[in-house]
Amino acid sequence: MTHLRSEEINDEFDGDTLHEECGVFGILGHQDAATLTALGLHALQHRGQEAAGIVTFDGRQFRTEKRMGLVGDHYTDPAILAKLPGSIAIGHTRYSTTGEVALRNVQPLFAELEVGGIAIAHNGNFTNGLTLRRQIIATGAICQSTSDTEVVLHLIARSRHSSTADRFIDAIRQMEGGYSMLAMTRTKLIAARDPTGIRPLVMGELDGKPIFCSETCALDIIGAKYIRDVENGEVIICEIQPDGSIDIDARKPANAQPERLCLFEYVYFARPDSVVGGRSVYVARKNMGVNLAKESPVEGDVVVPVPDGGTPAALGYAQASGIPFEYGIIRNHYVGRTFIEPTQQIRAFGVKLKHSANRAMIKGKRVVLVDDSIVRGTTSLKIVQMIRDAGATEVHVRVASPMIFYPDFYGIDTPNADKLLANQYADVEAMAKYIGADSLAFLTIDGLYRAVGGEDRNPARPQFTDHYFTGDYPTRLLDKNGETAGLKLSVLASNG
Amino acid sequence: MTHLRSEEINDEFDGDTLHEECGVFGILGHQDAATLTALGLHALQHRGQEAAGIVTFDGRQFRTEKRMGLVGDHYTDPAILAKLPGSIAIGHTRYSTTGEVALRNVQPLFAELEVGGIAIAHNGNFTNGLTLRRQIIATGAICQSTSDTEVVLHLIARSRHSSTADRFIDAIRQMEGGYSMLAMTRTKLIAARDPTGIRPLVMGELDGKPIFCSETCALDIIGAKYIRDVENGEVIICEIQPDGSIDIDARKPANAQPERLCLFEYVYFARPDSVVGGRSVYVARKNMGVNLAKESPVEGDVVVPVPDGGTPAALGYAQASGIPFEYGIIRNHYVGRTFIEPTQQIRAFGVKLKHSANRAMIKGKRVVLVDDSIVRGTTSLKIVQMIRDAGATEVHVRVASPMIFYPDFYGIDTPNADKLLANQYADVEAMAKYIGADSLAFLTIDGLYRAVGGEDRNPARPQFTDHYFTGDYPTRLLDKNGETAGLKLSVLASNG
Amino acid sequence: MTHLRSEEINDEFDGDTLHEECGVFGILGHQDAATLTALGLHALQHRGQEAAGIVTFDGRQFRTEKRMGLVGDHYTDPAILAKLPGSIAIGHTRYSTTGEVALRNVQPLFAELEVGGIAIAHNGNFTNGLTLRRQIIATGAICQSTSDTEVVLHLIARSRHSSTADRFIDAIRQMEGGYSMLAMTRTKLIAARDPTGIRPLVMGELDGKPIFCSETCALDIIGAKYIRDVENGEVIICEIQPDGSIDIDARKPANAQPERLCLFEYVYFARPDSVVGGRSVYVARKNMGVNLAKESPVEGDVVVPVPDGGTPAALGYAQASGIPFEYGIIRNHYVGRTFIEPTQQIRAFGVKLKHSANRAMIKGKRVVLVDDSIVRGTTSLKIVQMIRDAGATEVHVRVASPMIFYPDFYGIDTPNADKLLANQYADVEAMAKYIGADSLAFLTIDGLYRAVGGEDRNPARPQFTDHYFTGDYPTRLLDKNGETAGLKLSVLASNG
Amino acid sequence: MTHLRSEEINDEFDGDTLHEECGVFGILGHQDAATLTALGLHALQHRGQEAAGIVTFDGRQFRTEKRMGLVGDHYTDPAILAKLPGSIAIGHTRYSTTGEVALRNVQPLFAELEVGGIAIAHNGNFTNGLTLRRQIIATGAICQSTSDTEVVLHLIARSRHSSTADRFIDAIRQMEGGYSMLAMTRTKLIAARDPTGIRPLVMGELDGKPIFCSETCALDIIGAKYIRDVENGEVIICEIQPDGSIDIDARKPANAQPERLCLFEYVYFARPDSVVGGRSVYVARKNMGVNLAKESPVEGDVVVPVPDGGTPAALGYAQASGIPFEYGIIRNHYVGRTFIEPTQQIRAFGVKLKHSANRAMIKGKRVVLVDDSIVRGTTSLKIVQMIRDAGATEVHVRVASPMIFYPDFYGIDTPNADKLLANQYADVEAMAKYIGADSLAFLTIDGLYRAVGGEDRNPARPQFTDHYFTGDYPTRLLDKNGETAGLKLSVLASNG
Repeated sequence: MTHLRSEEINDEFDGDTLHEECGVFGILGHQDAATLTALGLHALQHRGQEAAGIVTFDGRQFRTEKRMGLVGDHYTDPAILAKLPGSIAIGHTRYSTTGEVALRNVQPLFAELEVGGIAIAHNGNFTNGLTLRRQIIATGAICQSTSDTEVVLHLIARSRHSSTADRFIDAIRQMEGGYSMLAMTRTKLIAARDPTGIRPLVMGELDGKPIFCSETCALDIIGAKYIRDVENGEVIICEIQPDGSIDIDARKPANAQPERLCLFEYVYFARPDSVVGGRSVYVARKNMGVNLAKESPVEGDVVVPVPDGGTPAALGYAQASGIPFEYGIIRNHYVGRTFIEPTQQIRAFGVKLKHSANRAMIKGKRVVLVDDSIVRGTTSLKIVQMIRDAGATEVHVRVASPMIFYPDFYGIDTPNADKLLANQYADVEAMAKYIGADSLAFLTIDGLYRAVGGEDRNPARPQFTDHYFTGDYPTRLLDKNGETAGLKLSVLASNG
Repeated sequence: MTHLRSEEINDEFDGDTLHEECGVFGILGHQDAATLTALGLHALQHRGQEAAGIVTFDGRQFRTEKRMGLVGDHYTDPAILAKLPGSIAIGHTRYSTTGEVALRNVQPLFAELEVGGIAIAHNGNFTNGLTLRRQIIATGAICQSTSDTEVVLHLIARSRHSSTADRFIDAIRQMEGGYSMLAMTRTKLIAARDPTGIRPLVMGELDGKPIFCSETCALDIIGAKYIRDVENGEVIICEIQPDGSIDIDARKPANAQPERLCLFEYVYFARPDSVVGGRSVYVARKNMGVNLAKESPVEGDVVVPVPDGGTPAALGYAQASGIPFEYGIIRNHYVGRTFIEPTQQIRAFGVKLKHSANRAMIKGKRVVLVDDSIVRGTTSLKIVQMIRDAGATEVHVRVASPMIFYPDFYGIDTPNADKLLANQYADVEAMAKYIGADSLAFLTIDGLYRAVGGEDRNPARPQFTDHYFTGDYPTRLLDKNGETAGLKLSVLASNG
Repeated sequence: MTHLRSEEINDEFDGDTLHEECGVFGILGHQDAATLTALGLHALQHRGQEAAGIVTFDGRQFRTEKRMGLVGDHYTDPAILAKLPGSIAIGHTRYSTTGEVALRNVQPLFAELEVGGIAIAHNGNFTNGLTLRRQIIATGAICQSTSDTEVVLHLIARSRHSSTADRFIDAIRQMEGGYSMLAMTRTKLIAARDPTGIRPLVMGELDGKPIFCSETCALDIIGAKYIRDVENGEVIICEIQPDGSIDIDARKPANAQPERLCLFEYVYFARPDSVVGGRSVYVARKNMGVNLAKESPVEGDVVVPVPDGGTPAALGYAQASGIPFEYGIIRNHYVGRTFIEPTQQIRAFGVKLKHSANRAMIKGKRVVLVDDSIVRGTTSLKIVQMIRDAGATEVHVRVASPMIFYPDFYGIDTPNADKLLANQYADVEAMAKYIGADSLAFLTIDGLYRAVGGEDRNPARPQFTDHYFTGDYPTRLLDKNGETAGLKLSVLASNG
Repeated sequence: MTHLRSEEINDEFDGDTLHEECGVFGILGHQDAATLTALGLHALQHRGQEAAGIVTFDGRQFRTEKRMGLVGDHYTDPAILAKLPGSIAIGHTRYSTTGEVALRNVQPLFAELEVGGIAIAHNGNFTNGLTLRRQIIATGAICQSTSDTEVVLHLIARSRHSSTADRFIDAIRQMEGGYSMLAMTRTKLIAARDPTGIRPLVMGELDGKPIFCSETCALDIIGAKYIRDVENGEVIICEIQPDGSIDIDARKPANAQPERLCLFEYVYFARPDSVVGGRSVYVARKNMGVNLAKESPVEGDVVVPVPDGGTPAALGYAQASGIPFEYGIIRNHYVGRTFIEPTQQIRAFGVKLKHSANRAMIKGKRVVLVDDSIVRGTTSLKIVQMIRDAGATEVHVRVASPMIFYPDFYGIDTPNADKLLANQYADVEAMAKYIGADSLAFLTIDGLYRAVGGEDRNPARPQFTDHYFTGDYPTRLLDKNGETAGLKLSVLASNG
């Protein structure tokens, strides 16, 4: 989903992390479709906590429920699930930046086509969304959301193909970028992954019924079996037959390109118990810590993770270095809703609302602080300060991924390039000084590749996408580079 | 707005009245645009209490607020008005039937066009809305609401004309039915009334700035001056110029047809203090009572209005007959929200939740009960019973409009024809017996025409539209008669 | 209920009327106790719209539901009524001034006594409430609301009598003022009226079960039979027996004093269809208009009521004077919640949010405007202006009650004496000039007495209480005159 | 706070943990009193998430805000903090069982006394609360909540002492049990801890102003300095003087008894970064794991904590045993509100809504699962099953505290004794079989004592209270053993 990050973003409080925007889940032919979708979305909640939506088809009509907030705030309520009968369902959970909070933007989106209704949900971003939007508006289309998903719907609606599946393929052939997409009609569940395979999407099965979802953890929660990853550039069309059996048709409409999964899925986004691209995320993260210990050893008394992201890498670092692993920072999980917009006075407490130093493990110690990544460095600065205030004699920061220099255009919400720590200081020493650390080190790009895939980066044909570290974007960037950069939408503010 | 009346409608409680669906208000070039629109909509609240919406343009972007409930429940809140800056605004208040309650259907609707954004709101109904909807979906349009207003937006978006005004005219030329419509762009406020002039629309002025609204009462509340009625088939385009002055361009794109205003505006819908088609609604209603007294006199001790609709006619009846006018029925104005869906046990109290007999004026009296109209007769039956229970010796019902035989297709929510009292009984005596009255009489169609316009009905060219009484529809009825009758929409249920 | 009217009261908008604070309803031995109580309170809604509460006893425990807002906003919801099982119920609806809005103050209040639970609700005010409160706090009681009702509970709890009925009588013997009170225990429904009979209370019967309520209109809505008024100083104790039969025991614990019902019940508070003290309120109001026409005739073209209060008197004035009665002012019944706290800009529209001039009946006419009473005159001023703006050539104001000079201490919320119009100007001419009327006249006190009771006021022993007009208070005013005037409560602000 | 645990408790879902009921925080003389209290309560959120309340005194009157939900859901909102001006504040956060959810029970409670207002909040429970309640009701007191705190208020109100401090001491001398209590008046902040010191309470200081709170983590969040623990049986009275200085008066009204802090504070309740009784909770928990490894070693491939409670002990177990520590269970922190009352179908997913197995660390491994305690064993059963389903070859459960046999009466919500796992099975083998573990072992009582205090349990005079393990209650249990056991309150259901 496209969005231009508001400049008035809450740097100090809301934190200094990258955000993934979406998780998707779909199932075909199961009598508990909506309940299973709710559970799957709950397992994918880490991919987006702002809003969630589910669409079902009850045999006669499509049903939609969309709600702001957590899946578990709404979709386990019997009254809401009762409004979502039917055996086909797709669902979506999303993160969004300030100012765009509106139910009309919450996916799945639905359209009435001549051939019947279709609902769509996706994770990721289109790099030519604004360009296409401008083209279809020029030919008389009406856009009512600011979501790129709507553009896909228009392309489907305008396709000259007769079958929904062909129309869908026709539409996604025109979309560029990184995405995992689910669509449903009255009888079909369709899954598609972008040609480069930037965003993850897996296929599973429960009681013989096909499921697609962003990560394997959504299969685990419902006891479903993992079948395989949807391949890059693949479209899988599942259709329920009159006799209740399900036909599955996998196509590769796009020219084959090598897959390049997003490394940040391994570094930060995916849940540690998920298996992404056939690799355990937890193991990859521990490996990052192990490699980091080898590359950047330091004398220390305790290895302390910055929770929760840095924990597996810290464990790896501790195991490889022999320095004891200790919980030197305690996380407060009870951060309520209004802490998202606190008074200025409370805002000043910043990082302390979420974290506190465990003085007994810090005082008088040389602390090796392990984090998964550093974006702006504003949080690191505060955490280092908190550790010092708790009595650490030295604070060494070790980061389990390389320095971030470039913005993402495939669904990760990145700050402007000039706000990135790596672009603000000349070298690592200057950065260390800014965050107040006695030393600072980042994992190398090869160290990261080895942690995830077992091999160094192949510069000729990188095995993953790593553009935020290297500037090597896996696709062209039409909206960014083209004339559409200045395009403004007329309507941005609405409660509808 | 099209809607198919739910069969599970609350006959017994929600009452036995016809509903108008909308009021509109728009203003151009005034710094208090949103506040004035909120006040205007408040004055038009009798035309629809379910939901209200306002759109403004703040010089950079369009702003929308839509809310379920009364105007005064939301739009006078400083926090909400602060979200609606700008000097152009249109607003809409609407009534809707059960089951269609959804913010996405609340007007004004907005679309992003190549030439810029446009917002539209209307009162009335299109008789070819479903037909057109099917056509545009067939050519790749996406419809996301069940509102005909969206169809107008699509026609505007698809028009090959370059100026917004020409596109607007192009679109409404394709629409048939009865409507008053307002549109706004970044610089323009456009008003249009259907070729037959079925629904009312007036033009006013405040501080030199043009205003359009459904009734004059919306001008009165803000102290604006009444200029004239928008004529049938007329489109008035007001555009703010770079120097702040306003150009006004009135066009008659449709072939001239004689105006035929809806008689029910006089009988029931319009507020008594409004002037519709140049005639005081209150005076017209009193005249109906006067004519009714002449046509259907009866011996009685008191004339009692059925509040609030029957009050002016009852006063006219009393003045003409010399029988004293008394408040024999007291209305309870504090009917809360859940009384709209009460328990079955409370439902049984039906009419008593809103009305009570003023025993002191009823007991031992021959009561002449005057009502504005009878639809199904279910309420009349209960009110007659309530009057008898309070001790009346005789109850004579006099109705200040003719018998209703036919459904409306121009924005009045009418029950199925076979539910209408006039279609259920052979003659007036049988109806009187059903409702329990000692006698029953309706105003004649000529009596009604004379009360409103001073002359008998001209059968060759009726001065008003009176199809609910006569079956003489002023336009063709494409959706009703054509093949689209069975068209179903896929998505009907949503909280979005 | 005691409360000191906030000075920051919304003079301009919230209006210029007196407020009654409460309506009560109770029933014993009926299986639909809560539903009937909800309906009764709905009929009494004019006595207080801020909040309502119902207590039932289900055979095992007491159940309470309290809600801000209208009865019909909550108590007809099946889910809420389901929480109120049982065959004994009392309920209360109340009006309250700004700043005291809190559920903990909403009646009925409940206390756990050694002899079992008791719930109490009352209409009216105690003139020694603060004095008693101070005394019981001094002896170790804890007060958790700012309601005088709580004081009654304490007195009951501390009584040395053993039976609940005796304790109740013991408590109310200590209370001074004007009140109608209902109490319920596990088996009893008790009704009491103050020794002077200032506030009304009637007894009715449905299906052989006793009912008590503030006005007869609450009997009418449920089809209950009126039995008699509770007498001044009377306590009626109804107790359900093991065999289901009901014992009724009427006592007169206080020394007999002549009854003096509050004249404002006739002038403004009671619903016109109620019978108070054996007299039709509607007939009394019409008589006030008739007497006013005799006392203060004027040449005019139309008699226009200020709705809704002035309507019956206007009808009487018109009938007595022969001047036609017309609806020259239309009331907007759709005033929503936020209009209660509107923006400053909308506030400026003041009276127009509720009323509009019906120009067709005003323009070029000499208007006789009839209102029920004038408190501060701020509303009168605006209404006269509105009538002039609509084109009246003359405006003559006739008020169907005498001038108000004195505050009330028996449950009517009166402004400070120096805010009363009658105290601000030397004579009627000066008042007329202030409100902008060509002439102004008030009904005489004898005219009012004759309208209500058929006889002139007996100065030696007035038949009613009329202290707001005359300063002749029917009881001593201990809190006002005594040392407790300065007593402040520590806690005033809470959302609990 | 007293409450009898509902039998219809959600065994399967809500989990199988003990609940502490409260956290308290108070500060005197600081201009940001309410904000600091909100932050302190946020840090104490783990002690109760159901509701929170804050009382301040603004120099003229007391202010109260009470809200259901998390501190961060409400008390950081500028609008709410603005309602809590003043430099004295106390606050409370609480856990409560089903069916007692009502704002009127939310602390702090307030009472108007003759000597002025007083507000009280406490953590813990009185073992003679019902007995005292019965006594004071018998002498005419009115109880309006079901909270024991109200009983304390009554005792204060009824005390014959003149100063508030003496009255407070008089009251708590009558209360038996385990509690930490804060009280505030217009000028005083009073802290008290029960004679045995069962519940924790610490004293701190910020900008020279005294603070009292349940745990040191509430001092850390605001950067306050820890002064000392309030001693068992101690009452500390802080009073602000006219010159702004603060007098502190520490008293020991009760006869000195040896302190016996609750061991469960170390095992489960307190936050790991808190220092309770001078000992780091985190270090104590790690020691429990170390001792457990020594007492009950087992061959295993990974040590896996049951998050979050078992994590420090698991780390200790791993360090002592040399078996690698791994996150074999991932916790989902995004459990929303309706998951608290999910559909039956979703309920079946039970433990999976909160936890998932990290298959990569489990499959083919011998897993040593470390948990902090076992209550009923229902959750353990499911977690063992989840680990087996993820492919573990063996599952050995090690519990870092002894078996629980006895209920608590000092503020810990314990299930009925017959529901405790230890009471349902004859021996550890039978328990292991029930939960499906290959082996099961509990820490010994001496192992626990050594982990916390460094020494074995002194049977003659135990250093802590450990009644849930041993049945050795540190006080008499009047309500439990006495005649009040059957006392029922009349009113239990209310939304007020």
